[in-house]
Amino acid sequence: MRILGLDPSLSSTGWGIIEITGNKMKYIADGFIKTNTKIPISERLAVIHNELNQVIETYHPNEAAIEQVFLNDNPTSTIKLGMARGVVILAPALYNISVTEYEPNKIKKAVVGVGKAAKEQVETMVKVLLPGCKPQNNDSSDALAIAITHFNYHNIRDFKTEK
Amino acid sequence: MRILGLDPSLSSTGWGIIEITGNKMKYIADGFIKTNTKIPISERLAVIHNELNQVIETYHPNEAAIEQVFLNDNPTSTIKLGMARGVVILAPALYNISVTEYEPNKIKKAVVGVGKAAKEQVETMVKVLLPGCKPQNNDSSDALAIAITHFNYHNIRDFKTEK
Repeated sequence: MRILGLDPSLSSTGWGIIEITGNKMKYIADGFIKTNTKIPISERLAVIHNELNQVIETYHPNEAAIEQVFLNDNPTSTIKLGMARGVVILAPALYNISVTEYEPNKIKKAVVGVGKAAKEQVETMVKVLLPGCKPQNNDSSDALAIAITHFNYHNIRDFKTEK
Repeated sequence: MRILGLDPSLSSTGWGIIEITGNKMKYIADGFIKTNTKIPISERLAVIHNELNQVIETYHPNEAAIEQVFLNDNPTSTIKLGMARGVVILAPALYNISVTEYEPNKIKKAVVGVGKAAKEQVETMVKVLLPGCKPQNNDSSDALAIAITHFNYHNIRDFKTEK
């Protein structure tokens, strides 16, 4: 079974794919979708949509996971993040792939072992947990961490907080 | 030329189509996309995406317009609105239809004549400006008002605020 981890943002959306066999996980791929800040938001969203479709068509994930949203004090940033997030969640949904949401501290706990780990610790542990994986950047490393978290909570189906 | 007006929300997204011939406008269609609050957000977004695609495939609009976002004090509401908005803007973008954004007071001014009009006044004027039109509900009436606004600002291409 393959899990797609997603870390959405309008400027750079991270994605990561891991494969689960029994209780073992293996790194498959990771990447990020950068959008040009000089084109209209509508076109930036289309870029995210089309590239994510490409990722799904290439790696055929069975399930997807995403970080529960980070709520910003700045409503303009929040709405932009929301727009990217909506488009990112839509992609797996159109392929009937379920999307499970995890709180940031659950992700850190699953990957590092403690809920208040630093960003660098998460990246280090992603490399340890997925031998041979060199994440392309922070966004794709975070996406892999989310995929790992989904693997850890895999058997607890009612964990879905997304509503 | 046909204009698609859009009023996005996760629970009920309004849409309206008007046709422009010379400097005259004509009502074509309107409707709203209701989503089931009991299914996951990802599936609700897929419903919005699929139904909007259907509207575009049926009525072939050439341009789209949307209200500039209403920023809520509640970040959770803002992120949900953002998610719906992202998916709503994506649909025309995937058909290479430009999406122009208008401030709420610009819409009221274009439709009612003053920037601080009440909701009911907007609906009344939509019916006056588009003879024969009986909007299905408030959301589709608002969407038609946005389409009318785009017609009014039609020749001012640099009005685009969306970035």
